[in-house]
Parts: sequence; structure tokens; C-alpha cells
Amino acid sequence: MGIRVAVAGASGYAGGELLRLVAGHPELDLVAATAHAQAGQPVSAVHPQLTGLDLVLAATEPATLADADLVFLALPHGASAALAAALPETVRVVDLGADHRLRDADGWARYYGGPHAGAWTYGLPELPGQRAAIAAAHRVANTGCYAVATTLALAPLIAAGAVFPADVVVVAASGTSGAGRAAKAHLIGSEVMGDLSPYRVGAHQHVPEIKQATGATGLSFTPVLAPMPRGILATVTAVPVGDTDPHEVLAQAYADAPFVHVLPEGTWPHTAATAGSNSCHLQATVDTDSGRVIVVSAIDNLGKGAAGQAVQNANLMLGLPETTGLSAFGVAP
Amino acid sequence: MGIRVAVAGASGYAGGELLRLVAGHPELDLVAATAHAQAGQPVSAVHPQLTGLDLVLAATEPATLADADLVFLALPHGASAALAAALPETVRVVDLGADHRLRDADGWARYYGGPHAGAWTYGLPELPGQRAAIAAAHRVANTGCYAVATTLALAPLIAAGAVFPADVVVVAASGTSGAGRAAKAHLIGSEVMGDLSPYRVGAHQHVPEIKQATGATGLSFTPVLAPMPRGILATVTAVPVGDTDPHEVLAQAYADAPFVHVLPEGTWPHTAATAGSNSCHLQATVDTDSGRVIVVSAIDNLGKGAAGQAVQNANLMLGLPETTGLSAFGVAP
Amino acid sequence: MGIRVAVAGASGYAGGELLRLVAGHPELDLVAATAHAQAGQPVSAVHPQLTGLDLVLAATEPATLADADLVFLALPHGASAALAAALPETVRVVDLGADHRLRDADGWARYYGGPHAGAWTYGLPELPGQRAAIAAAHRVANTGCYAVATTLALAPLIAAGAVFPADVVVVAASGTSGAGRAAKAHLIGSEVMGDLSPYRVGAHQHVPEIKQATGATGLSFTPVLAPMPRGILATVTAVPVGDTDPHEVLAQAYADAPFVHVLPEGTWPHTAATAGSNSCHLQATVDTDSGRVIVVSAIDNLGKGAAGQAVQNANLMLGLPETTGLSAFGVAP
Amino acid sequence: MGIRVAVAGASGYAGGELLRLVAGHPELDLVAATAHAQAGQPVSAVHPQLTGLDLVLAATEPATLADADLVFLALPHGASAALAAALPETVRVVDLGADHRLRDADGWARYYGGPHAGAWTYGLPELPGQRAAIAAAHRVANTGCYAVATTLALAPLIAAGAVFPADVVVVAASGTSGAGRAAKAHLIGSEVMGDLSPYRVGAHQHVPEIKQATGATGLSFTPVLAPMPRGILATVTAVPVGDTDPHEVLAQAYADAPFVHVLPEGTWPHTAATAGSNSCHLQATVDTDSGRVIVVSAIDNLGKGAAGQAVQNANLMLGLPETTGLSAFGVAP
Repeated sequence: MGIRVAVAGASGYAGGELLRLVAGHPELDLVAATAHAQAGQPVSAVHPQLTGLDLVLAATEPATLADADLVFLALPHGASAALAAALPETVRVVDLGADHRLRDADGWARYYGGPHAGAWTYGLPELPGQRAAIAAAHRVANTGCYAVATTLALAPLIAAGAVFPADVVVVAASGTSGAGRAAKAHLIGSEVMGDLSPYRVGAHQHVPEIKQATGATGLSFTPVLAPMPRGILATVTAVPVGDTDPHEVLAQAYADAPFVHVLPEGTWPHTAATAGSNSCHLQATVDTDSGRVIVVSAIDNLGKGAAGQAVQNANLMLGLPETTGLSAFGVAP
Repeated sequence: MGIRVAVAGASGYAGGELLRLVAGHPELDLVAATAHAQAGQPVSAVHPQLTGLDLVLAATEPATLADADLVFLALPHGASAALAAALPETVRVVDLGADHRLRDADGWARYYGGPHAGAWTYGLPELPGQRAAIAAAHRVANTGCYAVATTLALAPLIAAGAVFPADVVVVAASGTSGAGRAAKAHLIGSEVMGDLSPYRVGAHQHVPEIKQATGATGLSFTPVLAPMPRGILATVTAVPVGDTDPHEVLAQAYADAPFVHVLPEGTWPHTAATAGSNSCHLQATVDTDSGRVIVVSAIDNLGKGAAGQAVQNANLMLGLPETTGLSAFGVAP
Repeated sequence: MGIRVAVAGASGYAGGELLRLVAGHPELDLVAATAHAQAGQPVSAVHPQLTGLDLVLAATEPATLADADLVFLALPHGASAALAAALPETVRVVDLGADHRLRDADGWARYYGGPHAGAWTYGLPELPGQRAAIAAAHRVANTGCYAVATTLALAPLIAAGAVFPADVVVVAASGTSGAGRAAKAHLIGSEVMGDLSPYRVGAHQHVPEIKQATGATGLSFTPVLAPMPRGILATVTAVPVGDTDPHEVLAQAYADAPFVHVLPEGTWPHTAATAGSNSCHLQATVDTDSGRVIVVSAIDNLGKGAAGQAVQNANLMLGLPETTGLSAFGVAP
Repeated sequence: MGIRVAVAGASGYAGGELLRLVAGHPELDLVAATAHAQAGQPVSAVHPQLTGLDLVLAATEPATLADADLVFLALPHGASAALAAALPETVRVVDLGADHRLRDADGWARYYGGPHAGAWTYGLPELPGQRAAIAAAHRVANTGCYAVATTLALAPLIAAGAVFPADVVVVAASGTSGAGRAAKAHLIGSEVMGDLSPYRVGAHQHVPEIKQATGATGLSFTPVLAPMPRGILATVTAVPVGDTDPHEVLAQAYADAPFVHVLPEGTWPHTAATAGSNSCHLQATVDTDSGRVIVVSAIDNLGKGAAGQAVQNANLMLGLPETTGLSAFGVAP
């Protein structure tokens, strides 16, 4: 008899990936999956890739979830705070949404609106001291997908004093699953195939989270929608302090991290190599012309950027080896 | 200490998928991976998605492979026969190439040329009696990717006398990984994205294999290259005999097959739902206008069409549960 | 001062392509473009590729259109009949919808439902005698996209007695723009990229049109959605009568057709070569195993399959050279 | 009888697009197209999208080209200088390659190597004074594709003193046709679909050209290969001087440019809207967090980035209206 796990918000893309990971996890038992409009449907009708998983989506109610040892919340922002509050303290919760990430209530108000639910333990195990914090927590706020890619690239450099925190420029492109599963006209295949499309330029809601997680004090962040289902490629540039080798800083920071790979010098990350995995690939150099440090980071937005990271956090919270039920290897081509 | 496994031809796409599956398999130990031009390189340089797999590609020599308990051959056609002959009888071999599939030497001569190496046990466990035959064999010829998709759709209908074997029409589209990893001008991304391209129309080398495996006696087979990395969608039509329900025939044939899913009526297979998995999805109907039976089949050409199937065969040969180390669930979106 | 042209239903994909073609046409003046939900918006807000075209979408009212010399109707099926009836007889009309294609009221009732609006002159100039009929007509029903691809491949062979009309099998894959621009969950990019997905298997509404246009009496037609914005590839097979060379029949049928190219033997059509053009590429052979004739046809579903064809028809109706303002050359890669 | 035009290097992607544009140009006659390995083949065998264009590729010899009034050179870098030197001074030449772009011989030596051929008139008509210079020239060096996208976004801001030239950060993603048509393993479809891949990070050969064309003195430029055939999206950030509105500066700079569209505020460029056209779409804002100016630019790398721009330059050199034979409208979706 394994650890009892439920997934709330199982009809979306992060929810589907959670179901896949939990179903293949040797220590977890999937006891419930809930949805809103699609409650009552078999999982395989909503996620045909899970054909053979014999489970019907329930309605998203606290009673359905309270019986689990651990609950994953994969809900739209604003929805998880109330639901989490209705669950017993003994139930461990990993929230994949944004509700409990920001410590700064003003940042929340500015980009999301509505009441600030308060911050939970931040679910990025690769940050210094965070593994222990997550292991001790019953409530963990999963890192946002863009924030994972950017923070893993940048946080060690700022922490080491290798770059100035005040002038960071990030351009990050994401596959379309990052925009969710809702039927929107600008997301239909005919529009997105063959297209690169920037959005929320100059004012993206992930900026306060990235600043909080990295220590950056000035951040230009431009997200771009790319014609592929999965993957984030973040190009992070900053002004160096002194001549510390950024590659060396990153290599040391992640020497013991099973899912963060600083590639051999000269090899650059690309998203397809991380698809379907929980890995982050990193590389850094100093630009010959501008002298800026350039770090490139690649993840699967549904893997290390969402569901994979959530399972990694759950493993830590449950006292399991961090890598249980997760793969560092991507599905390519 | 697990079962010792080697992969010959590890630099191609099927080889890479084999490495991923073997590395994640709980009973198999990957002891060697070999290649030709890329021998000497780390696996992760050739397959960046396997970053973290600490292994260097060896040259493809019998001595490197003879020490394994089981060897997967993922070589170009014509190359595996000689290599297999140099391995001890005690070493189990699964050949993903075409060399040992055809019982008919003439069919071999006509489409492939060169000497016919002779047929091995045919590696499609879902055919009647084939599980036991594979379990008893030390040499198994993996089914070709198009043949898997077509045979699983058609063989039970012909065996049940539900369709005439003499007038079968198949149009099957494959993702580009089915065309291999060699640098060819017509395969570069600029050419294949946004394009559907038929090839070898009227004379495809998979025809004799499909006829042998399905019992079809007349087969029109048109393959099409589709703008996606993975997946085969086969549309199979045949003339019914009497009014047997084709859906029912298929459902019965695969009632106990863990990787073949006959979908609920009205739900049609699509390739993305099988990507990254070892599953085959099937659906059938009778066309309202022509009266022909239409069966649609979807697989991942690198999964059930190659590496997944090969591991399934290896499991059977080694006395392991058929599903060990494999997933029926796809990676979507 | 050119010929005054209006486009009704200009907000969809066929409508957008019509605007592009009319704007670049040396003899036509675009005087009005209408839409439903998006009336009031600038064309460039709805079709960013037409940035620089200074026109605001009007509401779709007869009064807005009655002033034009020629009106293109690119409306959902069922909507064009009433609108066309409200236009003066003197206004030439090309209907890109299905309302006036079928001569058979029963076929209409079976697949579309609602009252049958009656058939107009069928807008496929390459059918025998049809150029003259179109030139003489004030009301022309544009051929449907799948019907264009299939009819150009098949009609001459049936007309020449080279194949039996009773056993035709067609599998045709279309780019996603063929499914329209409405926001539907199964059409979002995350779902369609990397996917081949059959739909309406065994009962497609284009069957009666294809039978009417080709003379086929038994037709198995399976449409597949393909991961690309534009293009249709139709694979048409039929049983030969005698040993007429199908390539020769097609070459003769289209010797004088400026937009239908029967390729040199051995060269097969592919969709990307027709993208952005009004061309259809064809090739035929006799299958070595089954003996069936195989014809492959490629078009741009928005070009020869919709807007390009419509302009070609308009040219004929207006006494202009058939090729005016159209290109036989595709935009590739 | 039109102006006689020849295209050298017609077998590549820029060459194919040139042939398409010249064939559709009302004032130009295509008298010769040349290639290297593919000399002797019909154009339609090399560019199936040009089926119907009745021309055979000749070998690339000065004698074949010297007879033309204007020659387009679409050759690998290093190849055009010698060929151009062998053409009579009276023959107008537009070089799409890099050989004659850089005024700085050191910059050439550093990134390209080999002897520096000397700079020609720079072929970006939208730069101040450049239309007249191009009209007066017999030798014009077409702007590189990344340089077009970046320069149109940045040059007016630096010229107006609205941003500091010393700290410019550019991340630009390009479709795969920008990487050429050679068969390379990392460019095959299975590798590029679903992938974003940075390359030449920290040391790209376009840096000196962009600095020369924009006036930037410090430039961090990171190019990324994107999974689409065409299009460049450049995200350009710089530090503002004072509080000049960057949108206003760009709108004024391009008020009379027929192919450069500064979009309405709030609307951001995306590549698909420029595909197949000679347009550049621009938008600018000031980032709320960092205060940096962000400008986004979209072009078709084969259109405004190569062949379209070349025809625009040719029009100017020949005294034709700048827009002749070109379209500002894209082919979408």
C-alpha cells in the first residue's frame, strides 16, 4: 500500500503530466483526480495519452481530497488558496499555481489582483537550504515555469557576487502548453505553427517571482510563445563583477543536483533534450563583444517547470529519495 | 546485479530510445553501447537528452557485445546478419533491423537485395501464439514500424474471416524519425515542416513483411512523411465478409494485450496520444458509403514501432513480465 | 477604376486569403469586407499579415455588398443562401461555402440538414466544359477543398474509363486552417502539433460532393488533420480497367490547365510545394503488388482549395484571363 | 521586353525566393539562373514550388551572367567577390552574401577570414540617405537577415539619441531556412521540430555588421534556431536616455517606408504575419521594472531579410518604384 495522492485540476496540461508521473511512481498511489467542467469524465477521455488509466475525474471538492496523504493543486491562480485552506494541516500540499509563491503582497496585488494568500515554502530544491525547508514543510509553492528556467541560470551568479543584480535582461521562449489548455483563438494551431509571438512585453506577472527567487533588483523580462508544445529556453544576460568564470560558479552550485546539468563548455542547452524529463540544462559564457555574461537554460515547462518539479518536491516532503519516479532523460526526438 | 544488456547501433534514433528505456528499466544493466562513425564519443554528445548517462560509445565489434546476456541490434538493414552470426548462441539477440523478418527469400531479394539471412522468430507478441514463441527464442526479429501499425489493425480481421485478404488499401503517415538520422537534403527541417510527402509509392519494401504478418494477399500501401518527429497513423481499409463487427473482433483479439488499446466506439486514435509510449491505439468502423471496413491505428514509431517493442520482446525472452520498464502512457502534449 | 469586389466573411482564413489576393489583383478593387463578430475592427487587427491594408470590417449586410460588381461569400455553410438571395441578379457571386454545391437535395439533407438551397454552376474550371459554364454564370459554387484535391486526381480517370467508379478509396490529410479559425479545444496548437488525427471517419460530409464531381459510385473517404497550417495531400486509389496509363490520362486532361501540373514520372507531389499558390500537383502510378491505380494530389487548401480557386472563377466570370492576379508558384520553404 | 535579370546561386533558399519574386515581377525578365552542384537540372527539380517555371540551371560562370542588366548573387560568403569582379561595371549587382557588407577589414578578418573584398553601398533603403545612395550605385551589398531585423529596430533610437549605444542586448530567433539548405545532421527535421537551440553564443559573425549599421558600440547578440521554416523575431533592449517615447521615434523614422510598419501601441509583431512578404513589423515600449527600452522586430528572413530586400534594392537601382513586384502582405496562416 503506497502513499495516497490526489491531483486537483487534473484536466489541464500540468494535471495530465502529474497523472502520468504519479501513475508511474513506485511509491505513490493515485487515489483521486478532480476537475471542474470535465468532472464525471474518464481520465482517458480528457487525456487520451493516459488510455488504460482506469479513473474517473471527480469534482474538485475538499472532501474528495482530504483523504489523501498528499495533494497536488494544479489550478488557475486564485483558486488554490481557498481549497488549500479547507484541507487538514496533516495533508501535505504542493501548489503548482501562483497563489503562494510571493512573499510580497504588493507584487501580488500589482500583477494578479485579489487578496494575497501568503507565501508558502518555495519549492525550488536547488536553491541553497531549500531541500531541507521543503522536507520539513507541509505546504510547498511550486516555482513557476519561467522562474525555474531563469532562477537556475541566475541565482548562483548573483549569490556568488559574479554579476550585478541591477541590470538583468531575460528573453525566454516557451512552448504553447505553457499558455494552458483553454480554447483561445490566438492559441489554435493555425496561428501558432510557424510563429514566434512575444506577449505581455514590459509587464509580465512572473517578474516579482523571478526577482524574489534570484535576488535580481532590475529585470527586463520578455516572454515569447514558440511553435512547439513543450519547452522553455531562457537567455539570461547580466553584467559581470570581476572575472569570475560563470560556468565554474554554476558547475559548483549544482554539483550535487541530480536534475540540473551544467553542460561541457561549448555545448549549449536546447529544449528538445529536456522534453519529457525533469532536467534543466545550463551553459554560460562571457560575450566577446559586450562583456556581458550570457547564461542559457533549457527545461520542459511541464517537467522541471511544473509536474516534474512538483513530484520532486513531494518526494522530499515524504522522505523519499529526490529522484524517485522521475527521469533525468528526455524523450527525443 | 541485473541482466547485462548491450545496444549495437546506439547512435541512431531507435538506438537512443533503447538507451533511454534500458537505463530506466529496473532489471536491465546497460553494459555497452556501440556505434560506427561516432564510436569514442560520450553518449550525451550524441544524444543530448541522455545527459547524465555516463557511458562512452564503443566500436561495434562482436567482442564488445558477446559478454552481454542480451543484445539489441539497431543497425541498417544488411548489417545485423553478420554481426549476429558472430555472437554466441547463448546470447539473446533482438534485431530491430529488417534482416531476419522475411521468411520468403524472394521477397527479400526483390526489395532489399543481397543474400537472405533467414527468418528469426517474429517479434510481435500480440499475434496469436507469438508470446510463447518469443519467450522460447534466443533470436527475435523485431517487427518493422509500418508493419506493427498495419498488422495490429488488420491481422485479427483477416484471421477471423471478417475481411477479404485480397483487396487491402493502406495509407500510413510517419513522423520523420522513421526516416532515420542521416543528414539528407530532403529531410532537413526547412523541407519537412509544413509538408506532407509520399514516397516509394507503388513499391515499398515493407509490403512483403506486412503481407506475411497479416495474411493479406493483395496490398496497396502508400507511406507518407509527416511534419512531426514521431508517430505513425495507419488508415487500413478492406472489404468486409458478412457483417461481423470489426470493433468487436479487435476488442476480443487484444482483450489481454497490455499495450494495445481498442478505443471506445466513436473515439479515434491519434498519434500524439501514443508518443513516448509502447502503446498502440485502434478503432474500426464500416464506411457508410462504400461499405469498406476502415481501421485506424496509431503508434509511436520509436516506441511500439521499434525500441519499446524490442524491450517488450526482451522481457518475454528473459522471463520478465511483459510490461517491465515500459509505459502504456504517452507524453502529451 | 477597376472592378468593384466585396468579400463577405472576411474574418476567417479563406476570407483573409481572399483579401490578400484581391488586394494584389491588378483588375480588382476591394470596396468592402464584412464580418460578424469582428465587424468594426480594422482588417489588420484581425489579419495582422495584412497590416498596411487600410480597411475596416463592415457588418455582413446585403446593402453593403449590393453595390459591388462581384461578391465573394466565405461564410459558414447554411449562411450564404439567404444572403445571396438578397443580392441583385446583376451582382456576380462566388460562394466558397457548401450551400450551392450539391445537385442532390437528399445528399444535402443527409450531411448538412436544413433546406437545400439548390445547385449553382460548379466552380471547378478544369472539369470538361466547366470553363465556359463558369464564364456564362452569375452564380458560381466554389468546390470544397477536399473535393478539389480528389476530383482533379480522379475525375479524368473515371471519365476515360480507366478505373472502376465503384471502389475508390481516398485518404486525405489537411492542414489545420481547413478546420477553420474558431477557438476549439481540439484545435489549439498544443494538441495539433506533433499529431495526426482522423475525424468523421466513415461519414464525411464531402462524400456526396466528391461523388457528384468525379462520377465515383462507391467512395471510402477518410480525412486526417495534419500538423501544418496549410495543404491537402490526397491519396486516391482505384481499380484499373484495362491497362491505360493513368499518368498519360491525367497529362492529357490538364495539358492546357495553367494551375494543374502533372509532374514528371517518378516525382511525387508534396504539399509544401503548393503553399501560397493556386496550383495542384498530381502524379499517378500502378501499384506493383495490388495492381490498384494510385494517384496523389497536393494543393493549398486556402489556395486552389478555396480563395485562389474563387479568384480563378471570378476571373472567368469577368472575362479576364484565368490566371490574372494568381500565382502558380508556391512560397517555400 | 523587360529588364534582363540573372540569379547566381539559385539552388538555395534565398535563390529560390529570388526566382519566385523575379518571375512574378512585372518589369524584370529572368534570363538565367545558375548553380554549382545542381547545374544542369530544371529549376522545378530543385524548387518544386516553382513547377511551371521553364528554366534549366546553368553553371555559375561570369559569361552566363555578364549579359544581364542586373545580377543577384546568392552565394556562400567568400564566393561573390571574385565573381562580381569578373562582371562588367555596367552590370548592376546586388550581393545577398556577406562579402561586401563590412567597411572594417578587421571585423571581416575576425569573423570570416580570408581577404576583405571591400565594402559596397549598404542595401538597407530605410536608413537615412540610403535610398539615394542605392539608386546611384551599380554595386549593392544586401543587409544580412539578423542585421535587418535588429537595425530597423535599433538604428533610429540610437540616431535620435534616445538610447545609449554602449549596452544593447539582442536575442533573435530565426526559422531554419536561415541556416541554409545544406544537409547537416543538426538541421534535419527530427532535430529541429519541437526545439529551440541557441548557437554561436558570445561570438556571432553578424555582430560587426549590426554595430556598423546601428551605431551600437556594445552589443550582446544571441541567435536561436526556432522550429519553423521562415521568420526572425528580434528582441532588442537598450538603456534609454531621457524619456523620449521609442514608439514615436520609430513611427517618425518609418513614416514614409512602405515596408516597415510600426504597429499600433499594444500590438506586438509576430513572425507569421510577415511570412512571404517584404515587410518588417515593429513595436516598442519601456519596461516597467527595469526601465530598459524593449523593441521587437519581425521579418521573413527570406523576404525583407534576403530576397525581398534584394528586389527592393534592385528596383531602386533600376529607377523603378521601390515596391514594384513586392508585397507588404504576408501569407498566413
